[in-house]
Amino acid sequence: MGRDAVDFPVAVVLPAAGSGERTGLATPKQFCTFLNRPLISFTIETFERIPWVKSIVVVVAKESRDPMLNIVQQFHHTKVKVVEGGTTRHRSIFSGLQALSESSEDPVLPRPKVVIIHDAVRPFVDEEFLLKITLAAKEQGASGAIRPLVSTVIATTSEGFLDHSLERTKYRASEMPQGFLYDVIYQAYQRCSEFDFEFGTECLHLALQYSGTSAKLIEGPPTLWKVTYKRDLAAAESIIKESLSLSVCLISGAMAETVELSSRLQKNLESHHMTVEVISCIKENNELLLKTRNFIQISTSGASLSETEEMVKVFEETKHALLYPVVIVQVQLCMSEEAADIRKNEELKAIVDLSRMVKQGNVLLYSVQIIYSKVPELWERSVERLTEIIESLIRDRNPVLIGQMLQA
Amino acid sequence: MGRDAVDFPVAVVLPAAGSGERTGLATPKQFCTFLNRPLISFTIETFERIPWVKSIVVVVAKESRDPMLNIVQQFHHTKVKVVEGGTTRHRSIFSGLQALSESSEDPVLPRPKVVIIHDAVRPFVDEEFLLKITLAAKEQGASGAIRPLVSTVIATTSEGFLDHSLERTKYRASEMPQGFLYDVIYQAYQRCSEFDFEFGTECLHLALQYSGTSAKLIEGPPTLWKVTYKRDLAAAESIIKESLSLSVCLISGAMAETVELSSRLQKNLESHHMTVEVISCIKENNELLLKTRNFIQISTSGASLSETEEMVKVFEETKHALLYPVVIVQVQLCMSEEAADIRKNEELKAIVDLSRMVKQGNVLLYSVQIIYSKVPELWERSVERLTEIIESLIRDRNPVLIGQMLQA
Repeated sequence: MGRDAVDFPVAVVLPAAGSGERTGLATPKQFCTFLNRPLISFTIETFERIPWVKSIVVVVAKESRDPMLNIVQQFHHTKVKVVEGGTTRHRSIFSGLQALSESSEDPVLPRPKVVIIHDAVRPFVDEEFLLKITLAAKEQGASGAIRPLVSTVIATTSEGFLDHSLERTKYRASEMPQGFLYDVIYQAYQRCSEFDFEFGTECLHLALQYSGTSAKLIEGPPTLWKVTYKRDLAAAESIIKESLSLSVCLISGAMAETVELSSRLQKNLESHHMTVEVISCIKENNELLLKTRNFIQISTSGASLSETEEMVKVFEETKHALLYPVVIVQVQLCMSEEAADIRKNEELKAIVDLSRMVKQGNVLLYSVQIIYSKVPELWERSVERLTEIIESLIRDRNPVLIGQMLQA
Repeated sequence: MGRDAVDFPVAVVLPAAGSGERTGLATPKQFCTFLNRPLISFTIETFERIPWVKSIVVVVAKESRDPMLNIVQQFHHTKVKVVEGGTTRHRSIFSGLQALSESSEDPVLPRPKVVIIHDAVRPFVDEEFLLKITLAAKEQGASGAIRPLVSTVIATTSEGFLDHSLERTKYRASEMPQGFLYDVIYQAYQRCSEFDFEFGTECLHLALQYSGTSAKLIEGPPTLWKVTYKRDLAAAESIIKESLSLSVCLISGAMAETVELSSRLQKNLESHHMTVEVISCIKENNELLLKTRNFIQISTSGASLSETEEMVKVFEETKHALLYPVVIVQVQLCMSEEAADIRKNEELKAIVDLSRMVKQGNVLLYSVQIIYSKVPELWERSVERLTEIIESLIRDRNPVLIGQMLQA
């Protein structure tokens, strides 16, 4: 998408020098971590995945420079340039634009035709909308995302009483991303006043005032929302976890019993709106392994541990778990309660050791034991419980529970 | 608080007839459930806890009348009257006000002096702020919560271009709750036009236009925010879960080993900002049991199950788990690995049975086994893992994991 339409260089500036007082947290919100990764890395990833975005300038406070460089290295971000920002948002954006201007000599980082300005704390912008913003910026000189007003906006008297309400239909909330012809926004910042640098809130306003460019406004999806308060971090985490939990690869084994259990599980998971891909073993299925980050591995014997090790090796080689944790749920089918007791004591330690080892590589390994019953209703109920446990493990991705042997 | 200041009858109207399209969910958001309870019940609870709020009129769509009556019954709400709403928000609020007018003959539900209008989907309003709104409404005739604008508000041209940005300091977002002298708002609704009923957005505006009352505006806390999108449900759930996880009661037992483990756990949990109250057994400690909803019970023998049953009995009699799930984590301290193996097989079934039984009463029972080690570093590490597991169980309140025997 956009490959043909965007035949000019596009860069992104992400101001991330704010202290994020409003979250009520010690860490600025762009550096708050979930799923082992700071929020800003999710935002960077979003832009990095878009082929026509050539470079991303991240503007940080002086004290965040080294931590930011570490984030870039740890998560293998390749399009990022880190620069130091100023004391206000507008000064930081200008620093980012200047870094792009300097790089005009650099053939790897050409001076862009269009620059997108976004917030580090809005990780969910999608390519389709960015394309709209970019093309409108190219054509009109400037463009910006808008959203309907959530609350009525009112004007107050100086004594704190209601003066009047605005007519909601005539106004919009101005959001990010915004797009500009590089020359339009760079010129606006070169010409604007100290007052603008200190107190101005809107790039769109500067482009209008100092470059005479009126921005095209485009309604964006609700996902553009900005992580502002502590509660928003929980919301962002839930969105990411949900998107990671949509599909699963079921490794059924080759025995009649494991295949039967596998097909029941498949039915249950699909009825809960998961996409399920079933394979009998991982051999020659490497491509499939890289299509999801959730695996259920069914076995009746200890042989499954070596298969798990093989899978983890594939993930390591391909860095499949670099950005998001991979979940493997080992399901151990025991044909009798006695078998269950024996197996548990034998294998628990091996599972714990392996779990702790693979966790280093961002693979979360859990085990669930299920005991076969000849009574259909009991068996049905056990499989239902197994389904619930697996769904919960995949959805929550709780690192504290790795290595546990749960009972369905 | 407010008992002396509020010496006049106050009622609340909660319009809850909306369909909540914006969440992207089939269920209107006020009826979405977390921790086994619909959102609207959390909002009702907030008002019910305030002694000077005498009655709460919940206005619902016709098809939600029976479900709403069930919610009132299930969660023992005592101040609530359920009435049917109209086709728009304003018609529903008017229905709520009319229900209060009719009740003027009813000595139990007197016609209020002040009525607070709130949203069913803003569960986190606090008493202190409601007191401000109520007293301002009594004095000025009308009052409303405001918040600073989160985004810049802009006016658009008819072609979709930027016309101008509003100066952020002069405007505010109008939020809920709002308070009114009953006569002021009732009169406004009696006089307002069909157009207002259909398209009006603000009660404050109607009070100004039809009763000549300009509302006093009071800045509220960020917690006033409205559950609008699906992600907000995750945010609301995380706020409630966090507030439930702040304190824990540690039942140490009387043996030297369990007391030693208890004091280590206490230290760990306190260093993670939990308030910990330690008791040696539950006897004659009923009052303490009702001060928190999180319990850790340490024992070396199976005797703990009967103690758990006793606790659950207290919770049932006092309805302590009616509104929020109570968590009990049984910690089983084993002095050797062999003891651990034997205990596991013996007791697992009893624990599973008890867990499933007490879950009916909203008590979540989990077990964690920890094996004593004479090597100080190993023991230290096990206790650290135990702490993590306990914190995770308390924070997540995951019903799927009840009855599991986890290993520290």
